[in-house]
Amino acid sequence: MKLLAVGSVAFDSIRTPRGYAERVLGGSATYFSLAASYFAPSRVVGVVGEDFSAEHERILCDRGVCTRGIERAPGKSFFWEGEYESNPNIRHTLKTELNVFETFSPKLPHDYRDSSYLFLGNIDPVLQCQVCDQLPESRFVAGDTMNYWISSKPEQVREFLSRLDLLIVNDGEALQLTGETNLNLAARAIIQMGPNAVVIKRGEHGASLYSIPLKVASAAEAATAVTESVQDRLDYFAVPAYPLEDVFDPTGAGDSFAGGLMGYIAQQDAVSPATLRRAVVYGSVMGSFACERFGIERLRELSNEEVRRRYEEFAAFTSFEE
Amino acid sequence: MKLLAVGSVAFDSIRTPRGYAERVLGGSATYFSLAASYFAPSRVVGVVGEDFSAEHERILCDRGVCTRGIERAPGKSFFWEGEYESNPNIRHTLKTELNVFETFSPKLPHDYRDSSYLFLGNIDPVLQCQVCDQLPESRFVAGDTMNYWISSKPEQVREFLSRLDLLIVNDGEALQLTGETNLNLAARAIIQMGPNAVVIKRGEHGASLYSIPLKVASAAEAATAVTESVQDRLDYFAVPAYPLEDVFDPTGAGDSFAGGLMGYIAQQDAVSPATLRRAVVYGSVMGSFACERFGIERLRELSNEEVRRRYEEFAAFTSFEE
Repeated sequence: MKLLAVGSVAFDSIRTPRGYAERVLGGSATYFSLAASYFAPSRVVGVVGEDFSAEHERILCDRGVCTRGIERAPGKSFFWEGEYESNPNIRHTLKTELNVFETFSPKLPHDYRDSSYLFLGNIDPVLQCQVCDQLPESRFVAGDTMNYWISSKPEQVREFLSRLDLLIVNDGEALQLTGETNLNLAARAIIQMGPNAVVIKRGEHGASLYSIPLKVASAAEAATAVTESVQDRLDYFAVPAYPLEDVFDPTGAGDSFAGGLMGYIAQQDAVSPATLRRAVVYGSVMGSFACERFGIERLRELSNEEVRRRYEEFAAFTSFEE
Repeated sequence: MKLLAVGSVAFDSIRTPRGYAERVLGGSATYFSLAASYFAPSRVVGVVGEDFSAEHERILCDRGVCTRGIERAPGKSFFWEGEYESNPNIRHTLKTELNVFETFSPKLPHDYRDSSYLFLGNIDPVLQCQVCDQLPESRFVAGDTMNYWISSKPEQVREFLSRLDLLIVNDGEALQLTGETNLNLAARAIIQMGPNAVVIKRGEHGASLYSIPLKVASAAEAATAVTESVQDRLDYFAVPAYPLEDVFDPTGAGDSFAGGLMGYIAQQDAVSPATLRRAVVYGSVMGSFACERFGIERLRELSNEEVRRRYEEFAAFTSFEE
């Protein structure tokens, strides 16, 4: 089924203890669509500047990504420069230049409106809502946000959350968004804000999925399920991270996670609890691959066989019942 | 099979956002043996002062723990006072009084020498080694250590590690012990120091088990397995934490984890890879229960049925294959 990603297509300069990559193709929609491409082709809506060449576009097209929704604007593309310490959890942003992104207003090509599955990468929540308005028929909407929007546009983030089926955030953002200190309570609070499900990414510790059980997912019953403070009324699933010994470059791991997750859902054309669980595992698979080389390098060169094998590794290292 | 725990039997004063518990029974060997008691009775070797009453002893005896190895000494028992912030990961030690523990020298009752399974709680590594010397025939030795010993007695900790089959540590200690910033590399480095296996406790993020595959566990092959930097030569298993919404008091969670783990191994009288995996899950079960009330309260009152049900919950929230 049709999968649409809206987000940034950007250039990143990345320094890690392993080296330096200068102005390489990045951005949330880029990582997302490359990761998703191993499951289902996706369409990208974003904006780039004159520095986005045919060669850059080919990277996406070669993986079956539709780039017709990428708008060209005069000037330069969004640019981010950052540095990771030897502990890859510690990242310093050295430079952020919005450039053409500053006036970005997502416009969906008319024939993109049959997209059943939508991912809203981490952009201004006002724009995220505008995209939702243009896709009233979508079947399943997932989105991401970040600390910057949570603190600068809290009302708009709340409005955005009310449009989502699934929020995908990292642990720090989940706590910031809800004011909780416990991730499980934070998940419950997020579900009270609108989405039927939330995935909390825990970096090197894995990811958790909290969702309203399908059987109570009608609006009225859902409200009961989340206000009753009964723990087992939320369906819980958790998966540890792949045990990477060398986190070469974590840039884009979160968007690659989202791409694997949504790509699998679009491929299966299903949002059952069992599909969501496996989608979280495929998200973890793609997030782990993203960390193995600079930028998008690893995501360009994978084989379906490698993806499948890593999924099987997850099944093997998490099982304990005979 | 016979399970022996050596460690502290102590009193704790604990302040959390939920209240204050004054001079309640605690200590690593106490938590360990109570948690283990749901699987196999254990014997405790430790030292207490005159403040350890018959009533305190009864708490252990009621759960089938053999207290004959607990030495009485003039003076007061080990005492710890601490405070947790609303984020229970942040703990402040307000007072530590070694008291009778200062001159503790573990002496095993003669009839304890048939203990097949041994757990060495977090005490001076010199004493931990002395216990190993007294139990040359033990089948499986697990142990714990902490930041204090790692920095003050690094040589003795290394000697201790060389005696272990399994080290159980938390994530911060694993990094400190090895100087690594990556937990997977830290686990490999620990196995190079001696143990065939290491469990890294990640608090609210779960626990991981790294071990030398049985098929290469002869001494010569083991050395090859750990020096070759091939990731899949170590068997890896990970389990997420139980999604507690209210961490009432995390004191003793780590020792309760060790108790569930070793209790299950002693009950099964097996150290196969499959047994070790399930033991890590039972450790996680007991660690989660320990956090639900002050001190040892929850560990005293559980039923075998509650333990079994929580284990089944772990199986349910970690499975994703149909």
